[in-house]
Amino acid sequence: MTTAPAARTALTHVISSEQFDRARLDDLFVRAAELDGARNQRCAGQIMATLFYEPSTRTRLSFESAMLRLGGTVLGTEAAHAFSSAIKGETLEDTIRMVSTYADVIVLRHDQLGAASRAAAVAAVPVINAGDGPGEHPTQALLDLFTIQRELGRIDGVHVAFCGDLRYGRTARSLALLLALYPGVCCSFVAPDVVQVGADILSRLDDRGVPHREVSSLADVIDDADVVYQTRVQKERFGDPAEFDLARTAIRIDADVMRALPQRAIVMHPLPRVDEIAPEVDADPRAAYFRQAANGVAIRMAVLDSVLS
Amino acid sequence: MTTAPAARTALTHVISSEQFDRARLDDLFVRAAELDGARNQRCAGQIMATLFYEPSTRTRLSFESAMLRLGGTVLGTEAAHAFSSAIKGETLEDTIRMVSTYADVIVLRHDQLGAASRAAAVAAVPVINAGDGPGEHPTQALLDLFTIQRELGRIDGVHVAFCGDLRYGRTARSLALLLALYPGVCCSFVAPDVVQVGADILSRLDDRGVPHREVSSLADVIDDADVVYQTRVQKERFGDPAEFDLARTAIRIDADVMRALPQRAIVMHPLPRVDEIAPEVDADPRAAYFRQAANGVAIRMAVLDSVLS
Amino acid sequence: MTTAPAARTALTHVISSEQFDRARLDDLFVRAAELDGARNQRCAGQIMATLFYEPSTRTRLSFESAMLRLGGTVLGTEAAHAFSSAIKGETLEDTIRMVSTYADVIVLRHDQLGAASRAAAVAAVPVINAGDGPGEHPTQALLDLFTIQRELGRIDGVHVAFCGDLRYGRTARSLALLLALYPGVCCSFVAPDVVQVGADILSRLDDRGVPHREVSSLADVIDDADVVYQTRVQKERFGDPAEFDLARTAIRIDADVMRALPQRAIVMHPLPRVDEIAPEVDADPRAAYFRQAANGVAIRMAVLDSVLS
Repeated sequence: MTTAPAARTALTHVISSEQFDRARLDDLFVRAAELDGARNQRCAGQIMATLFYEPSTRTRLSFESAMLRLGGTVLGTEAAHAFSSAIKGETLEDTIRMVSTYADVIVLRHDQLGAASRAAAVAAVPVINAGDGPGEHPTQALLDLFTIQRELGRIDGVHVAFCGDLRYGRTARSLALLLALYPGVCCSFVAPDVVQVGADILSRLDDRGVPHREVSSLADVIDDADVVYQTRVQKERFGDPAEFDLARTAIRIDADVMRALPQRAIVMHPLPRVDEIAPEVDADPRAAYFRQAANGVAIRMAVLDSVLS
Repeated sequence: MTTAPAARTALTHVISSEQFDRARLDDLFVRAAELDGARNQRCAGQIMATLFYEPSTRTRLSFESAMLRLGGTVLGTEAAHAFSSAIKGETLEDTIRMVSTYADVIVLRHDQLGAASRAAAVAAVPVINAGDGPGEHPTQALLDLFTIQRELGRIDGVHVAFCGDLRYGRTARSLALLLALYPGVCCSFVAPDVVQVGADILSRLDDRGVPHREVSSLADVIDDADVVYQTRVQKERFGDPAEFDLARTAIRIDADVMRALPQRAIVMHPLPRVDEIAPEVDADPRAAYFRQAANGVAIRMAVLDSVLS
Repeated sequence: MTTAPAARTALTHVISSEQFDRARLDDLFVRAAELDGARNQRCAGQIMATLFYEPSTRTRLSFESAMLRLGGTVLGTEAAHAFSSAIKGETLEDTIRMVSTYADVIVLRHDQLGAASRAAAVAAVPVINAGDGPGEHPTQALLDLFTIQRELGRIDGVHVAFCGDLRYGRTARSLALLLALYPGVCCSFVAPDVVQVGADILSRLDDRGVPHREVSSLADVIDDADVVYQTRVQKERFGDPAEFDLARTAIRIDADVMRALPQRAIVMHPLPRVDEIAPEVDADPRAAYFRQAANGVAIRMAVLDSVLS
């Protein structure tokens, strides 16, 4: 990764976390830290469209909060499929061309892989990918990385233990790839075989020289973990209920785990959590997941500010 | 009721109409009268989240209008159940913690009794209860009381005749309890037995020394009523259609009732009305129900201004 | 049509495109051209309610964009039927009276003919008809006419070839009637018999002295067309699938049609389009349909500015 001049030009579209190099990430995190908690008028007079083909209220509200704090305004729909319903049959491209005339930036959530790229190809305004099915959700990966930096004061050299659904969950996979941009990082993948991380991710970490371990018990790696990144195992990924139960109960963060966790470490989770983190953990200052959610607003402020300024 | 200093501190959460004493009510009504019709910037830069677990468009729009008139902004959802859907299983508490990072005040509508209290217990920002199932809807009670004061110039000593569904309808019950804070008030409850007011309310009025009468005909009490507070009988409360029909048709406000009603009196209704008030009544200056709806915006402006300033 | 003084007073409600005479249209188009692309504070402190009894996200977002660009704010619902649901039974009139207390202008979409007029009769604020079932959608007709003026520099004397569903589609019919206000205009109606324009429209054009032709092939009239106004044939209008297929495939705008179309002419479409305009046409500068959609925001800004100032 270089810090070539091109890397510092304004962002246009935000489609993939892989479009960010170190220089862009550094810029973005500085901006996010400055904007965190701020209320200003940097986007006054500008309109953000939230175009959601599937509901994702959490993501939508976080983006809307970000835009409102920047003094901008919001319009949108959580029923964007109406544009391309069986009866009307409009293409995504036509919808984007039209919404481009209503708004200054489009936040797109879609159920199809590649939808954000297709949208960006025809949009007259910046497109931000808020999830394209099995594809990416780049602002989630950015806020995760930003959280590590804020909580630990550095990203270089951290050891992140990923837990939960590492096969199907896109958040852990995206974060692992972003971490590979930082020297000295190492990754542990803690999961039963049925949801252990895929060879594709491991091969990319190898290419980038990132050491990694695959284990089935958190006890094997917790001693020198800086971050435990827990994720939810999603029932809908499993055909076999027994496999789901196995995956779901394999790794749970509770008071016992917290006793084993180093004092300097943190626990993260992209939320929502169900029972993979016990409520008793919430009061521990190392429980960073609600601060992580709040960082989502700051990161989205920084992203909006970048594409609109 | 005392006017102890504590009563005059800023509101934090608004959960129950019973948290208001005379001093708070007086303050709130002065503020509501000042804010009525105003457009200002008192909440500029602040964000209200409307978190509705069941649709209540009327209540939501009234709150949103209030916040926008104060120069604030709004985000929200009428499908908040998505946060705790079967698949995801997030608790209300976690949702509130998260939304606390997006907004400066949360207006919560929920279908479960006690939801607003649970939310307030974990929220980092003020929570306003916009209805918690069979529980309370305090801003409705406040706007009702405010309407009596504005329309009649006083609350002390008024005689309110409650009609309609006094058993299941929470608005009449909440208003009766608030009226008990004012000297000289008396209450008539006009309903067939099947929807007559419950012994719990009567016992509390007795405790507070409020005289009351239970009758089945409005004619028995109309001569010296200051307020006829009509309510809608909700079909969904009845298993037996015959009972519903009896309750629904027992008391209807029409031109004949208006002839019997004193000139100084008013007719109120929380809306929506169906046929329990005839359209012919609308043109009568004593028909206060649409002015009452408008007062809802003023009261909610005062409440938002209190919790956000 | 006269330019009587009355014609120049402020608009109150916008219910029908036929309430506009030449003087009003001239004023409106001047204002729309001035406001196009502007961000100002002309409606600061004012609230627009979008009250949609059926979803029409495209129309709603266009109105919302217009209001936000004027510095105003927006509240609303796409589920307005909840107000008059079987359980609650509120009339449209009561809903409008209530929403009048929340907002400074109401944009109403309803599935029943005449709903906008009924609303205007009781509203305390201006009502803008955003479609009343088989009735009218006046801002669509206005933006179509405005597009012709902007694209061609004039409306007087233009020849518009209407294609597609001229029987059931209200956009082509409304535009034809508005064109009749301009001298020298002529209309061609290009459709198979099953969706050819109705005798009611032709008779009104005759009354106003507008020459017209009804043909089944675009080739018959394309040579001196200034505008080809294509429309979508809606499946839901047809009982017989064979009739639908006939109507749907009869006239398609593609590269061959574009070769025959005069260089000065434009292609319009109210959107969404399905396959009645081939994607290959999009890159042609004469393809005006996305510019037409953008004009919708400018026209709605002008309409809102008129009714709110």
